[in-house]
Amino acid sequence: MGALAVGASWGMDASRSHPADAADKDAIDLTTQYPFYDQAEPAGIRTPPQRYSIFMTFDLVDGSLRTDLQSLLARWTAASAQLMRAEPIGQVQPSSDAGVGQDTGEALGLDAASLTVTIGLGPSIFDDRFGLADKRPALLRRLPKLPSDNLTPETSDGDLSVQVCADDPQVCYHAIRNLARMARDTVQTRWTVMGFGRASAGKGQQTPRNLFGFKDGTRNISTGADFDKYVWLKDADWMTGGTYQVVRKIEMNIETWDADRVSDQEHIFGRGKTHGEPLSGSVEHDTPRFAAKGKDGEAIIAPTSHIALAAHENNGGIKILRRGYNYTDGINEFGQLDAGLLFVCYQNDPAHFVQLQRKLGAADLLNEYVKHVGSGLFAIPPSPKTGHYIGEQLFT
Amino acid sequence: MGALAVGASWGMDASRSHPADAADKDAIDLTTQYPFYDQAEPAGIRTPPQRYSIFMTFDLVDGSLRTDLQSLLARWTAASAQLMRAEPIGQVQPSSDAGVGQDTGEALGLDAASLTVTIGLGPSIFDDRFGLADKRPALLRRLPKLPSDNLTPETSDGDLSVQVCADDPQVCYHAIRNLARMARDTVQTRWTVMGFGRASAGKGQQTPRNLFGFKDGTRNISTGADFDKYVWLKDADWMTGGTYQVVRKIEMNIETWDADRVSDQEHIFGRGKTHGEPLSGSVEHDTPRFAAKGKDGEAIIAPTSHIALAAHENNGGIKILRRGYNYTDGINEFGQLDAGLLFVCYQNDPAHFVQLQRKLGAADLLNEYVKHVGSGLFAIPPSPKTGHYIGEQLFT
Repeated sequence: MGALAVGASWGMDASRSHPADAADKDAIDLTTQYPFYDQAEPAGIRTPPQRYSIFMTFDLVDGSLRTDLQSLLARWTAASAQLMRAEPIGQVQPSSDAGVGQDTGEALGLDAASLTVTIGLGPSIFDDRFGLADKRPALLRRLPKLPSDNLTPETSDGDLSVQVCADDPQVCYHAIRNLARMARDTVQTRWTVMGFGRASAGKGQQTPRNLFGFKDGTRNISTGADFDKYVWLKDADWMTGGTYQVVRKIEMNIETWDADRVSDQEHIFGRGKTHGEPLSGSVEHDTPRFAAKGKDGEAIIAPTSHIALAAHENNGGIKILRRGYNYTDGINEFGQLDAGLLFVCYQNDPAHFVQLQRKLGAADLLNEYVKHVGSGLFAIPPSPKTGHYIGEQLFT
Repeated sequence: MGALAVGASWGMDASRSHPADAADKDAIDLTTQYPFYDQAEPAGIRTPPQRYSIFMTFDLVDGSLRTDLQSLLARWTAASAQLMRAEPIGQVQPSSDAGVGQDTGEALGLDAASLTVTIGLGPSIFDDRFGLADKRPALLRRLPKLPSDNLTPETSDGDLSVQVCADDPQVCYHAIRNLARMARDTVQTRWTVMGFGRASAGKGQQTPRNLFGFKDGTRNISTGADFDKYVWLKDADWMTGGTYQVVRKIEMNIETWDADRVSDQEHIFGRGKTHGEPLSGSVEHDTPRFAAKGKDGEAIIAPTSHIALAAHENNGGIKILRRGYNYTDGINEFGQLDAGLLFVCYQNDPAHFVQLQRKLGAADLLNEYVKHVGSGLFAIPPSPKTGHYIGEQLFT
């Protein structure tokens, strides 16, 4: 397979909205590139989820100045654009002595592999440390305490977030490594999660599975109208065209889950495990009928099932764009695979996530098997124009 | 791209022994399947390295019987063959209630993605606990202490090793999770490393890069004659057709490395960073001329450079098959990416690795930047016949 035009790869065929099971899974085109500058929306959000992701947050070191933040955002912008073009960052010297210049080199010769870099601004940079209080995005506050929160500071929050996603893990690692490296005079790393096996589907992709073995994201936002209505910010001053990113590190007790009967698991999710159909229907994309009752007079889809609690029909029409990844942190203290979901969602009002999680955290049958250990909220500025940089409007 | 015949994917084109840079990298065919049973050699060794790997070792729990080990090897064999065919393991019940049976389900609907499972036997299972002392593979002893060893028991050894490799990380995770899960009454997990960005090249693949940014494995074993001479066991009783697996978890001090001048880095490796040419040559696959001297009368390739110390010309002709992966363990205590190399090599005599590592550990200029923290030696039995299982000959 040779080089294809940008955007012409698998997963971008807008004519298929509900692909057959076998539609998108048999090949990955590593030559796909996404543009960084001059886009209607920032990269890495509507982009069909790549197979690998590294999420990292950073804190500016004590004593950092406003100009340090400004300079970092400018340098990250330039580097992100280069990385997404599969170019080594920094200056590449012609002499063999200088070699690859500032770039660490491990992605030399690799294609872009659909790399996207998505940079977020945390609430804490607007706490007047940098004289930016008047530029605070209107809805950017730390998330309130939510039911079932079990958060640790070590895996929560941050002044800045960076989400890199790619179809080649080495490309992904190279990007975050070099972005972290070029920033180390200005920031300290705070927490990171390495995700795999995208846990959401973009347009034209089949619905992937979470580590509970269930299809996840069947009813995710997919239409342009829904993106406009629920994801992108309108009339939001310098944030217009941007969005808000919520990140939750959710540990999953997969050992307990695996010991549960599949029929119980299906009751908890409200869907069949093998095919993902709502329990009130027969195929995955059947619209769930939450009012349907069985012969016993009970709701076929339990009102406290995951899909019932999360459904827009039961939440005043609210939708969020989920774009998470599975993760594993190796073997835990009990000798079992430590695994979970890096839940990432995008919405034009963080209160939408809060409303959903208040319900889920209080009543979801799934709570017995999950633990929210990390959390963060970040503002994602719009895609910068060529010659400009992310968040430039903060400093004008 | 539709389904291709097994083995017909990229990376299997034997007519290209030194592919051009762009040859193999632009697409991954996820439909590729490798057979498990009835092969001339065990899977996952000559197999072109996949992009993702999880390595895990296990210890049999106290009080385990010989029949527990026997049963585990038989069950792992059957499950490995199913996994490599992209089938859910265990019984798949027809009723929706039983769903996916024993399988945890997260790879349902995914292709095989070139999955291979390679099972190894550690020296400790032949220490008479199971009455297997007379079956001990002739060269299977714990590795001796080596120069520069910095090993911890928590990341070394094990009664059994499992190496799973695939081009889809979710497929890879699913395989190790289910193999670990079905074994948990018999074994405890000991250590694991999740690798990415294959750090070696198979036939027809371009040479990948390690996290120092250098091409690694240019001179790896690739011909059938060398596999026969250096990798596969001959006249080795029940181990004939098998091999020995050495695993080393090598931490890399990438921060110090990145601060070094590229010319120093090239001196340490003995190769150019950008193109991988030996410093005595001009293109990657030029044979290094270790005797060549520069105008200053000094060897162009330093005798203590990595390639000089490791070269078969300087080691009595010894070659080993390297098949490692890069890894990262997230952020370390210093807030930096904890990264390194899961070095895996295969050879028909572990003394070959020992000889090379004695030299490298004592003199390699690279030692300033690496730390060997984990180690293990395992015997890899030959591919079982249909209806039989790995290591069955131990119990007859």
